[in-house]
Amino acid sequence: MTEASATTTSISTLRVGLLGCGNVGSQVARILRQDADELQARVGARLELAGIAVRRLGRGRDAELDASLFTDDAQALVAREDIDLVVEVIGGIEPARSLILSALEHGCSVVSANKALLAEDGGTLFEAAAKADRDLYYEAAVAGAIPILRPLRESLAGDRVTRVLGIVNGTTNFILDKMSTTGAGFAEALEEAQELGYAEADPTADIEGFDAAAKAAILASLSFHTRVTAADVYREGITEVTARDVVTARDMGCVVKLLAICDVRDTPAGPAVSARVHPAMIPLSHPLASVREAYNAVFVESENAGALMFYGPGAGGAPTASAVLGDLVTAARHRLDGVSGSGESAHGQCEVLPMGDTVTRYHIALDVDDRAGVLAAVATEFARHGVSIQTMRQDGRGDDAALVLVTHSATDSALSATVEALRAMDMVHEVTAVMRVEADGE
Amino acid sequence: MTEASATTTSISTLRVGLLGCGNVGSQVARILRQDADELQARVGARLELAGIAVRRLGRGRDAELDASLFTDDAQALVAREDIDLVVEVIGGIEPARSLILSALEHGCSVVSANKALLAEDGGTLFEAAAKADRDLYYEAAVAGAIPILRPLRESLAGDRVTRVLGIVNGTTNFILDKMSTTGAGFAEALEEAQELGYAEADPTADIEGFDAAAKAAILASLSFHTRVTAADVYREGITEVTARDVVTARDMGCVVKLLAICDVRDTPAGPAVSARVHPAMIPLSHPLASVREAYNAVFVESENAGALMFYGPGAGGAPTASAVLGDLVTAARHRLDGVSGSGESAHGQCEVLPMGDTVTRYHIALDVDDRAGVLAAVATEFARHGVSIQTMRQDGRGDDAALVLVTHSATDSALSATVEALRAMDMVHEVTAVMRVEADGE
Repeated sequence: MTEASATTTSISTLRVGLLGCGNVGSQVARILRQDADELQARVGARLELAGIAVRRLGRGRDAELDASLFTDDAQALVAREDIDLVVEVIGGIEPARSLILSALEHGCSVVSANKALLAEDGGTLFEAAAKADRDLYYEAAVAGAIPILRPLRESLAGDRVTRVLGIVNGTTNFILDKMSTTGAGFAEALEEAQELGYAEADPTADIEGFDAAAKAAILASLSFHTRVTAADVYREGITEVTARDVVTARDMGCVVKLLAICDVRDTPAGPAVSARVHPAMIPLSHPLASVREAYNAVFVESENAGALMFYGPGAGGAPTASAVLGDLVTAARHRLDGVSGSGESAHGQCEVLPMGDTVTRYHIALDVDDRAGVLAAVATEFARHGVSIQTMRQDGRGDDAALVLVTHSATDSALSATVEALRAMDMVHEVTAVMRVEADGE
Repeated sequence: MTEASATTTSISTLRVGLLGCGNVGSQVARILRQDADELQARVGARLELAGIAVRRLGRGRDAELDASLFTDDAQALVAREDIDLVVEVIGGIEPARSLILSALEHGCSVVSANKALLAEDGGTLFEAAAKADRDLYYEAAVAGAIPILRPLRESLAGDRVTRVLGIVNGTTNFILDKMSTTGAGFAEALEEAQELGYAEADPTADIEGFDAAAKAAILASLSFHTRVTAADVYREGITEVTARDVVTARDMGCVVKLLAICDVRDTPAGPAVSARVHPAMIPLSHPLASVREAYNAVFVESENAGALMFYGPGAGGAPTASAVLGDLVTAARHRLDGVSGSGESAHGQCEVLPMGDTVTRYHIALDVDDRAGVLAAVATEFARHGVSIQTMRQDGRGDDAALVLVTHSATDSALSATVEALRAMDMVHEVTAVMRVEADGE
């Protein structure tokens, strides 16, 4: 069916094969159709949608799309000789990986929005793209419409990125924002997010941080020219964040956000990177603190540029399609020029640190005996682990007292060992809250 | 002196000629030296600083720079056969334009930070670059370190930008932020900005909006694929903004910012663009409202991506050098690949509207007679000009009353004609404030 339309590729037309026609794919198809003339002016050649692979034929499709474009044989589509550019928006590891590899082998440049695949096995894909001398772009895989990968790869190519802090999951930001503005608990805020379509029926990938962890791996890889996979990323979701944590944060002049944090620091063995996803308190004065609802933002610190922030919608069909189309235009221009992009560089070859070796700070709240000597005993426990206390507040409440502390920077292993030791102390009734504190300039 | 080091360019080294060694140029030279190995890994060839043109030889220079690199003959430097890439950070129209044109003619790619030149005569430069098949990049010309031109040109290449709102001048943002947070008047805030080095001894280019207008021309050109020059940009500075305006804005839930605004709208004759710079009230809830001190931010609205914001330091030696280096790495990669960038596209060929035809809203405050019939007479004057009133508040104060209005959207000519008519009314003692209102969703 699709082979009938195969013709020799001429320089005045580039033919696009689309893998997937759901939320994002249908928007890509719409823009290719509606903005065909404008895209032609920008690219210097016509972008023609030449085929669309879907899992099942005949389901409700955009009436504007010619039924003959559709196929359920994705493998045949990427192998078609007349296809120049492949857009992969089916997601997941397989068959996406095999299809992308096959497309590259068949001489197509590829644009993908597949964060899970890029984070798990980007290396294989980049090598295949380099071998085929074709482009592989994936701006849409991180933070939807927000241009962040291209700025990291190109705009900051003459700078050294030192840290990336990202709000890269809209679902969790919506939930935490609700909890912060309405006082709702986690379960209630999740329910509202589901009702409004910000969270899926099975919200695991979002609320447990898997989605953000994949994006953290991609951000760390590009920022530090080092291959970081999803498995390298420490991950904690937001299911344990309580309404009380949110109130405590506010009292401290902070707000709770789920952050993807990537940084690099010098060690005796050379520069080492870490990548992690967890809830954290950040000061209200930080630009990330004002990122509301389901918006995303990525805050980038570099040696020369200083602090930059990129803000916008992190999901949605049309916004994600905008990022896909931007990549597609670049890949198309490259095809016309007979070149490919500069590829993904892993020359940094930094060690990836385990979570225990990363440096952070803890906010800790304790219920303790309200008697003399408790403060000294608690402080001694911190000192024994080499953890220095920045602020401490004690509120007496009759028999017991609440102790609220924020530490100075220390390794996460020292901080978590301190918490374990506190839990074991007789005079400590309960450790009521533990949360990392980030981005406050220490 | 410099000719002695001329050698045939080999693919493993690209030679950089630097025009200007002031605040930005010295930082470019430092990064090229300090990060030489890292840049080599990213480019795939060595970037060698081969010559630096300065106005006067022998002044205090970075001791790390070889004295033999310096020359006061910029024209000879750009004509040297061994130079592959030229960085222009001297600013101003001439001799910068002649030097860039000469560099392109001699086969160099050029990176410039020169907003004034790009905004006045970009067309000549782009044509010369296209003719020479060389790159001309200028990310540093707008909003310093913030990657904004590359995202507009490439990331959003598959989208349609509809409006750009930018805080693109750090000096005026610092002054307005001071006025807003401390209640200071303009003169006092300007003095503080000068003491802290945020404003120059002669602050005209900043406070009168010339600097922002040049950036608006560049942003409009890229956003709408239409050539817009600084002369096309309507311009009002911040010297007339009073402490009272700032208080009034706060009462209305707004803050006063100097905005560069570029938009496109459909007219019977086709899409038409406008570009303007003036103080405006924007709602406190808008992401631009939280851009404090001397920071810059550019808010971009597009059909598919929705609303994006790019935030960071808009000036300074190292931040601006970061943007220059990013362009330099791209230009260097292109030289190795034997290609040039896609150039600047003016295929949009939109009409550029005069200010009178642009659509905006006004906040207007009046002192009027405190008697019956005044409100009706004022409202009639608005209606006579076809201007619809959104909100009106009247505060009696004995003999006279204060009337505070915000209009709905109308053409600027209708709005300014209304203000003139109000001034001529007997019952209007004084028009105490007029300011445009932007970005509040109407």
